[in-house]
Amino acid sequence: MKASETRTAARQRHNPLDRFFASDNYAGVHPEVLAAIEMANGGHQIAYGRDDYTRCLQDLIRQHFGERAEAYPVYSGTGANVVSLQAVTDRWGAVICADTAHINADECGAPERVGGIKLVSMPTPDGKLTPELIDREAWGWHDMHRATPQAVSITQATELGTIYTADEIRAIADYVHARGMVLHVDGAQLANAAASLGVSLRELTADAGVDVLSFGGSKSGGLFGEAVVVINPDIARSMRHIVKQTTQLVSKMRFVSVQMEALLADGLWLRNARHANSMAQRLARGVESIEGVDIVYPVQANGVFARLPREAAERLQERYHFYFRDEQPGVVRWMCSFDTTPEDVDGFVSAIEHEVGKGSA
Amino acid sequence: MKASETRTAARQRHNPLDRFFASDNYAGVHPEVLAAIEMANGGHQIAYGRDDYTRCLQDLIRQHFGERAEAYPVYSGTGANVVSLQAVTDRWGAVICADTAHINADECGAPERVGGIKLVSMPTPDGKLTPELIDREAWGWHDMHRATPQAVSITQATELGTIYTADEIRAIADYVHARGMVLHVDGAQLANAAASLGVSLRELTADAGVDVLSFGGSKSGGLFGEAVVVINPDIARSMRHIVKQTTQLVSKMRFVSVQMEALLADGLWLRNARHANSMAQRLARGVESIEGVDIVYPVQANGVFARLPREAAERLQERYHFYFRDEQPGVVRWMCSFDTTPEDVDGFVSAIEHEVGKGSA
Amino acid sequence: MKASETRTAARQRHNPLDRFFASDNYAGVHPEVLAAIEMANGGHQIAYGRDDYTRCLQDLIRQHFGERAEAYPVYSGTGANVVSLQAVTDRWGAVICADTAHINADECGAPERVGGIKLVSMPTPDGKLTPELIDREAWGWHDMHRATPQAVSITQATELGTIYTADEIRAIADYVHARGMVLHVDGAQLANAAASLGVSLRELTADAGVDVLSFGGSKSGGLFGEAVVVINPDIARSMRHIVKQTTQLVSKMRFVSVQMEALLADGLWLRNARHANSMAQRLARGVESIEGVDIVYPVQANGVFARLPREAAERLQERYHFYFRDEQPGVVRWMCSFDTTPEDVDGFVSAIEHEVGKGSA
Amino acid sequence: MKASETRTAARQRHNPLDRFFASDNYAGVHPEVLAAIEMANGGHQIAYGRDDYTRCLQDLIRQHFGERAEAYPVYSGTGANVVSLQAVTDRWGAVICADTAHINADECGAPERVGGIKLVSMPTPDGKLTPELIDREAWGWHDMHRATPQAVSITQATELGTIYTADEIRAIADYVHARGMVLHVDGAQLANAAASLGVSLRELTADAGVDVLSFGGSKSGGLFGEAVVVINPDIARSMRHIVKQTTQLVSKMRFVSVQMEALLADGLWLRNARHANSMAQRLARGVESIEGVDIVYPVQANGVFARLPREAAERLQERYHFYFRDEQPGVVRWMCSFDTTPEDVDGFVSAIEHEVGKGSA
Repeated sequence: MKASETRTAARQRHNPLDRFFASDNYAGVHPEVLAAIEMANGGHQIAYGRDDYTRCLQDLIRQHFGERAEAYPVYSGTGANVVSLQAVTDRWGAVICADTAHINADECGAPERVGGIKLVSMPTPDGKLTPELIDREAWGWHDMHRATPQAVSITQATELGTIYTADEIRAIADYVHARGMVLHVDGAQLANAAASLGVSLRELTADAGVDVLSFGGSKSGGLFGEAVVVINPDIARSMRHIVKQTTQLVSKMRFVSVQMEALLADGLWLRNARHANSMAQRLARGVESIEGVDIVYPVQANGVFARLPREAAERLQERYHFYFRDEQPGVVRWMCSFDTTPEDVDGFVSAIEHEVGKGSA
Repeated sequence: MKASETRTAARQRHNPLDRFFASDNYAGVHPEVLAAIEMANGGHQIAYGRDDYTRCLQDLIRQHFGERAEAYPVYSGTGANVVSLQAVTDRWGAVICADTAHINADECGAPERVGGIKLVSMPTPDGKLTPELIDREAWGWHDMHRATPQAVSITQATELGTIYTADEIRAIADYVHARGMVLHVDGAQLANAAASLGVSLRELTADAGVDVLSFGGSKSGGLFGEAVVVINPDIARSMRHIVKQTTQLVSKMRFVSVQMEALLADGLWLRNARHANSMAQRLARGVESIEGVDIVYPVQANGVFARLPREAAERLQERYHFYFRDEQPGVVRWMCSFDTTPEDVDGFVSAIEHEVGKGSA
Repeated sequence: MKASETRTAARQRHNPLDRFFASDNYAGVHPEVLAAIEMANGGHQIAYGRDDYTRCLQDLIRQHFGERAEAYPVYSGTGANVVSLQAVTDRWGAVICADTAHINADECGAPERVGGIKLVSMPTPDGKLTPELIDREAWGWHDMHRATPQAVSITQATELGTIYTADEIRAIADYVHARGMVLHVDGAQLANAAASLGVSLRELTADAGVDVLSFGGSKSGGLFGEAVVVINPDIARSMRHIVKQTTQLVSKMRFVSVQMEALLADGLWLRNARHANSMAQRLARGVESIEGVDIVYPVQANGVFARLPREAAERLQERYHFYFRDEQPGVVRWMCSFDTTPEDVDGFVSAIEHEVGKGSA
Repeated sequence: MKASETRTAARQRHNPLDRFFASDNYAGVHPEVLAAIEMANGGHQIAYGRDDYTRCLQDLIRQHFGERAEAYPVYSGTGANVVSLQAVTDRWGAVICADTAHINADECGAPERVGGIKLVSMPTPDGKLTPELIDREAWGWHDMHRATPQAVSITQATELGTIYTADEIRAIADYVHARGMVLHVDGAQLANAAASLGVSLRELTADAGVDVLSFGGSKSGGLFGEAVVVINPDIARSMRHIVKQTTQLVSKMRFVSVQMEALLADGLWLRNARHANSMAQRLARGVESIEGVDIVYPVQANGVFARLPREAAERLQERYHFYFRDEQPGVVRWMCSFDTTPEDVDGFVSAIEHEVGKGSA
């Protein structure tokens, strides 16, 4: 068929120049990722994971996540987390996490409902767990009245834009392993954390003692798809059944695997993450001198959390999408993504300055 | 970035001329669908369903599925089914289905585990339920010992390649509604059924009394993504929460919605389905005269189910992917897809003839 | 306090001479069981299973169910089944059973909802599975699309009043074990089966290859409480957590354990079962010569299943409680229990004769 | 049969004079309750809830819990909670509770696993929620990423021995109802709270705005059995199906209902609770002057929470059962029950004084 014909079936519905500060998921697909999908198209490939792309992905995964690592591509981040946590817990298991953790706060109870998993959540100062915090809930392994703590889940970067260093993760892993538990990382934005720290994915995961990982694709410039990376295969079995039962088995899996390859093979994950992080730094620098705007968490990845007058924020939302943190009155979240430009940031800073300057009428 | 650079990040791993008879999911993406994804790329769109493409999709859905229809794009067919069935049952509800139904036989227990749904399954001669068959299990609504029959689920086309006519569906819908139940259609291959019957999607669903539908995208030439279509919104509520809790909320939803638009806006769904069906007819005609090959179900959609000598089939599998039906010793399933060519079929028929002619050594 | 005072707080609400043919659960408590409860009263005992009665019960259980057997007292039969099946399946496991099985037909979907368990059910001629029947569904262990068949569950005596011989169970166990599965027995009426066959509980369970058992207490003359008996501890772990999570952990467990002791220590289980069985035989003999009444299954335990004119049955229900089998139009179920007397049976036979003789007006 | 024969079948295994301070569940059955069970024995009664005792119980329940109240007897406290919470939430619902709540801390994840319920827990100073605390989590009703807050659950008396006044409950109920949520009370020890406050059960529940209640039987001197009391039937439906599906349907239900009657008809619940409370007061008075023992929560019901030297506590445990609070190093829980005597308390106080006086060797 002709391309012109093709173009008429579905129409462009939006302005491709719009860019906001709401979420990395508002962005589209990086051209290299789309090109990879196109390249993997054509002909038949075995569905459900025995295709050539998924097979080849395993080599790349071992390079980035350790020699024993295995990747299970899935559809969604929530899916990756629910699969991971089921894989490393028994029916009676509990998972310790921060109360701000995506699995606790943003997945509509999917871990509980789909996986039957008890989450034991706790407040943290900055979204980060520590061995000391975990220790408050890591007990009662033989008490049948208590869901057995079998895993600890941390988010990297956290939902508050902060990151764990490799040493911090190692300390948690050591604590966790000494008690027979496993360490899960929700790494929807792992790329941003690694880019920020200037370390490899492996240093921040396998080398630091992580056992299982949800590795984000869509927030790194992908179209869709994440990967459950089992770094330590001793602690998980029958992964494919769990993936399928969780509704997360990708039929045309080659197209998730080739996206992962596009991100991992040639450093695209790092370029995208560095760029998004630097845009967040630019934004932070831009607003830090604006009176009435306070940055409330260290800006370590691609998000800026700030407090500003509610009315100014609402006026700003008429032109830019972004979210209020419902949990913290007055605090907003501004996210940068792989396609955020310096001009986008500068324009946004000006708009903030303008609206905050107006005060409340 | 330069295109040349782009092309090196992920490599082609397969022969794009390979085509088999295993599953419509072995096929890749139809070029019009891929073009639509590309067109929807660029800029920011609200994630999780409030984007312009998902909004516009609703009009198309109403054209094809009735004036009150609502579409909820999701990732996978199993996801669409589990979401649909949760939406129309209470915690204590049961769903009546054929024992060959995908929800019963091919989803690894996801409806039970994720949705807590009791499936009441029964044998059928050809994969199709009838009011008489349903009647055997449609009782006990006030008996607390019995999971309450609240929905009937049929698959269109069935897992045995047969299809329900609009009249047959209407008869089931009338039976079902008279008892306060709802009718769900697993329509992963609804397009093939409608194409085979020469009726519109609407005649086969909304007009025939269907309440809720899993509408297939990936088996119709899509990259990924299905849609839960709530034809009768009176029987479902809080769909978005159910979608999210089932791990099926698509972050960059515009890219599923634009695929659906590409399929539905200009008849691509029908062209693809007609083609796949005609290839199945060609295959059936090709093998019906081969001694030792028996077609075991009417060829009504894009699949041919045949019995042939096991050894011949196994030799054939060295060159072509296809599946044995484990439930029925000696029976194989051959599926055609949108990209199957007449030459593919003819070559396959020759190969079958050759292998069956060899007999068993 | 004085007994007279005691007696006023709650009042007798029923005629203690009423006895029907509806269910062994309509009966009260055998006096020896009540005496045992009274004897175990007074003072404090560790709750939740570490009491002296539960400890001592283990010896008795080993006598009756083999040297490695362990008992986990629970509240209800449905609870015992759901605990047992969870204990021997993974999250992705399936359990093969007859479609008439209590777990499939009479537990409101509890195995699916509470345990997330896929039941693979099939029709049988008489409520009994055979290796041949099981073989139709015992496949696909490595197919992630299929819930993995990990256990077979049989009911002894069946829901149709038939029983498995020890040889039949052994044949099933051998089949099951050869495929890496485990064999569960829903033994709510195991006592009746053993009494009917004249074999010990052990011959019918441990010696025949059963791995795990739901052992009935309440249908044998108990007040409440059943026991999960793990005959082969290699296949189950963390039983206490599963019991607790299933809401089945008995707080004052001494009172279930002492009931089990009362039933098992001195043959009360056998006396009660023999008596109930003989009453069913008396009832069968009484009605077999009545024209218009047909016994539809072999009377092997304590139930008689018969077909008689609907109108006669409904008139009979004005005086006697019993159930119609909704699944089989015209068929009724008459159950005898430990307290059914010969006079009860003879009076019931006369009433049946009288009502059937009237014909339909 | 003869009584002497009866007595030999099960043997007494414990010293009926032993009494500890571990849990009200270590106690046995109050003689009036046992007498009521005995009185309800004999003859046949319809199983599963349509018996005369369960019917009559409804009148008593309405007297104590308001004119629209309905009782659903179940087996266990965890069962009552899981049934209650399922009854008042949708699949996507969340329940707000204190982190010390029994449903959160002591049910091995049963609400999550059996009910699929998201618990949103939070720290409290004394085990008690307030509108201010609830307000931190009562938001996001239309946000599909967040499990919808649909119920608040409070424990009365709390797990820390504190109680809510009727006014405090009313304030919570008003807050909860204003936001379309419902109020659940885990009332395993509701009797103790009412006795302590000198108010009726109704004043503390229906009159204060409670919607649904788990009413404790076993901790009030019962043998087994609790009741789900639906105070406001508008917010719950198909209770019997939920009870059955949760494995909590009592077969011989007359025996739970008659226990409830024995407790409620003539004030036994109040006599037992007052006594247990007064024993806790006596214990508190006894230890408050012992140097090295600090009472850490107000003693308002039948429990005393104290901090004392670990070694002294461990020596004390050689003679008396009681629990450490694992969550709070050095804190122990001492519970009194209906059968605790003043002599028991005084002996225990002496033992505490003795062991604490020894210091740590």
